[in-house]
Amino acid sequence: MKLNIALLAGDGIGPEVIDQAVKVSDAVAAKFGHEITWKPALTGAAAIDAVGEPYPDETHEICASSDAVLFGAIGHPKFDNDPTAKVRPEQGLLKMRKKLGLFANVRPTFVFPSLLDKSPLKKERIEGTDLVFFRELTSGVYFGEKGRKDDGNTAYDTNMYTKEEVTRLAKKGFEAAMQRSKKLCCVDKANVMETSRLWRETVQGMEKDYPEVEVSYEFVDAVAMRLVQWPKDYDVLITENLFGDVLTDEASVISGSMGLMPSASLGTSISLFEPIHGSYPQATGKNIANPMATVLSAAMMFENFGLAEEGKVIREAVNKALAEGIVTEDLAEGGKAYGTTEVGDWLAKNI
Amino acid sequence: MKLNIALLAGDGIGPEVIDQAVKVSDAVAAKFGHEITWKPALTGAAAIDAVGEPYPDETHEICASSDAVLFGAIGHPKFDNDPTAKVRPEQGLLKMRKKLGLFANVRPTFVFPSLLDKSPLKKERIEGTDLVFFRELTSGVYFGEKGRKDDGNTAYDTNMYTKEEVTRLAKKGFEAAMQRSKKLCCVDKANVMETSRLWRETVQGMEKDYPEVEVSYEFVDAVAMRLVQWPKDYDVLITENLFGDVLTDEASVISGSMGLMPSASLGTSISLFEPIHGSYPQATGKNIANPMATVLSAAMMFENFGLAEEGKVIREAVNKALAEGIVTEDLAEGGKAYGTTEVGDWLAKNI
Ligand SMILES: CC(C)[C@H](C(=O)O)[C@@H](O)C(=O)O
Ligand SMILES: CC(C)[C@H](C(=O)O)[C@@H](O)C(=O)O
Repeated sequence: MKLNIALLAGDGIGPEVIDQAVKVSDAVAAKFGHEITWKPALTGAAAIDAVGEPYPDETHEICASSDAVLFGAIGHPKFDNDPTAKVRPEQGLLKMRKKLGLFANVRPTFVFPSLLDKSPLKKERIEGTDLVFFRELTSGVYFGEKGRKDDGNTAYDTNMYTKEEVTRLAKKGFEAAMQRSKKLCCVDKANVMETSRLWRETVQGMEKDYPEVEVSYEFVDAVAMRLVQWPKDYDVLITENLFGDVLTDEASVISGSMGLMPSASLGTSISLFEPIHGSYPQATGKNIANPMATVLSAAMMFENFGLAEEGKVIREAVNKALAEGIVTEDLAEGGKAYGTTEVGDWLAKNI
Repeated sequence: MKLNIALLAGDGIGPEVIDQAVKVSDAVAAKFGHEITWKPALTGAAAIDAVGEPYPDETHEICASSDAVLFGAIGHPKFDNDPTAKVRPEQGLLKMRKKLGLFANVRPTFVFPSLLDKSPLKKERIEGTDLVFFRELTSGVYFGEKGRKDDGNTAYDTNMYTKEEVTRLAKKGFEAAMQRSKKLCCVDKANVMETSRLWRETVQGMEKDYPEVEVSYEFVDAVAMRLVQWPKDYDVLITENLFGDVLTDEASVISGSMGLMPSASLGTSISLFEPIHGSYPQATGKNIANPMATVLSAAMMFENFGLAEEGKVIREAVNKALAEGIVTEDLAEGGKAYGTTEVGDWLAKNI
């Protein structure tokens, strides 16, 4: 396969972890006879510094004409104190999601047996956890009308969903459920919100198309509790943009393996892959950032191209590295800590 | 003091736990020379069954003319499968909050040393946790305009806040912070939502009035993570209605003492006190429900009347009961389990 991959390294540790994912992907390509052309482009604070905006048109064109996007992380402390600033890295993120049509954010949460102790939760609560969220990413309150009235003394945000938007997201969830344990949970607040009632009735209408999938409907507040109490209870969860923002982040800490969690954002024609961790400014340039989440995001990318075997060799290399202690300082537990590039090199060599 | 207290027992185990709180409150009144007149009124599924709606006018009049409301729990399984049904117990709850002007929901989360093992979190993560949420309760997306367009294929909800609404809620938070560790966290999504930006700028404008309070601003997704990771980091948190719904429920499970957590909903003229647990239908009538959360809600009620000593004797009785194992089956851990009424009797006797 010939693959053109846009490479959006972003800010902070982004470039360092992206480098390792490139190295590992190239090793996979060499092994399986694929040809990857990497197309670097600016994003985040780096793009603001260079050209004055976080998702420049040129970057968009590179992404839109590629087969996929591999994304590092964005965010810089100089933007931290004022979320209302005119130009911010996050705006680029939202613009990118909308313009590329990345409507389904896929966020798996699973545990690595060797890392269970890192979790804030007790071992018996998380052992065996393996769930995946499908979060709607291009609609809802993020993109609805918002503004001020009464001389700025009243503010409003509109959350809006169409049946089509719910359907295409839910379809991804149902399809994933069919590949997994055939359990789907629709997370909403249908006792209060009209958008949630649309979600619920739309998903209910789709149940007949997936007779094997057991569908449950839970309120967002109940899920926020049960995720901490019994994460193993869940398999596939689908939800709207804002609920997904909160719940996927909550879920990411229960596994204890947050630094290893990859994600995908699926669009109709193009998809994006990125680690769930941030730009971690304090670690920038120190060669200490854990590249595994980005490497596993590359695995999701191969799998999304239908290259299951390619994804598997990456996952196996990561598991082997964990088992043999070839890890960065966040996972070293008093043992030897390897550098970001050393872990990347080791993984590439073990492909 | 002469106190008129509206008594809304509600559904399921509501009446059983309310009975114990009445018993204990009467014991406190006797000890300190107060006179409580209890005014029972219908609410929840019980009210729907009796008069066709969950918060009848008559109930509202009883509440509005009382000094406080003591509330049990509402909800019945027969309403569970259809959150879109015309008449539902929750609607009564929202109507009651709005009509009584209960704008600040106060939700403490603290740990009982003897119950740390019940938490899904590791002991070292939760030991010493003592935080309190102030959730706005009468505005936001709960009460904003909502509806359908395009033949029902598009749904929308409006989240709306005024500066006054934010100010009065934040004031409660600042005041509580002054009584506690002088740390306040404003939880919002100011990088995305206009209402959040209003929240943030309003709270920022109030900082100068409370120079001793150290204020932080965190995004709701980050708080959803840190609550599980480091709940001890937090002291007072203030937030809007929907974020508060999700985060207070999430926080309630980390302590491991959910069955013991009380709450208050403060209004301008009248306030309401209730356990955070639900109506627990499966336990109804079995004399097994834990009455302690409701009893501690009565303690909050006394404290809210400025009767700190009265609140304290209740808290001490509960601590003593826990220490001596006078507990219901949920806390018995293989030891002797007492009935709901026995625990109530014991607490009343130990006032
Ligand atoms: C940065 C922010 C706008 C973004 C979001 O809320 O979607 C982030 O939290 C995420 O989840 O990717
Ligand atoms: C029942 C429901 C409408 C209510 C809410 O969302 O406010 C409940 O979850 C709560 O937190 O009291």
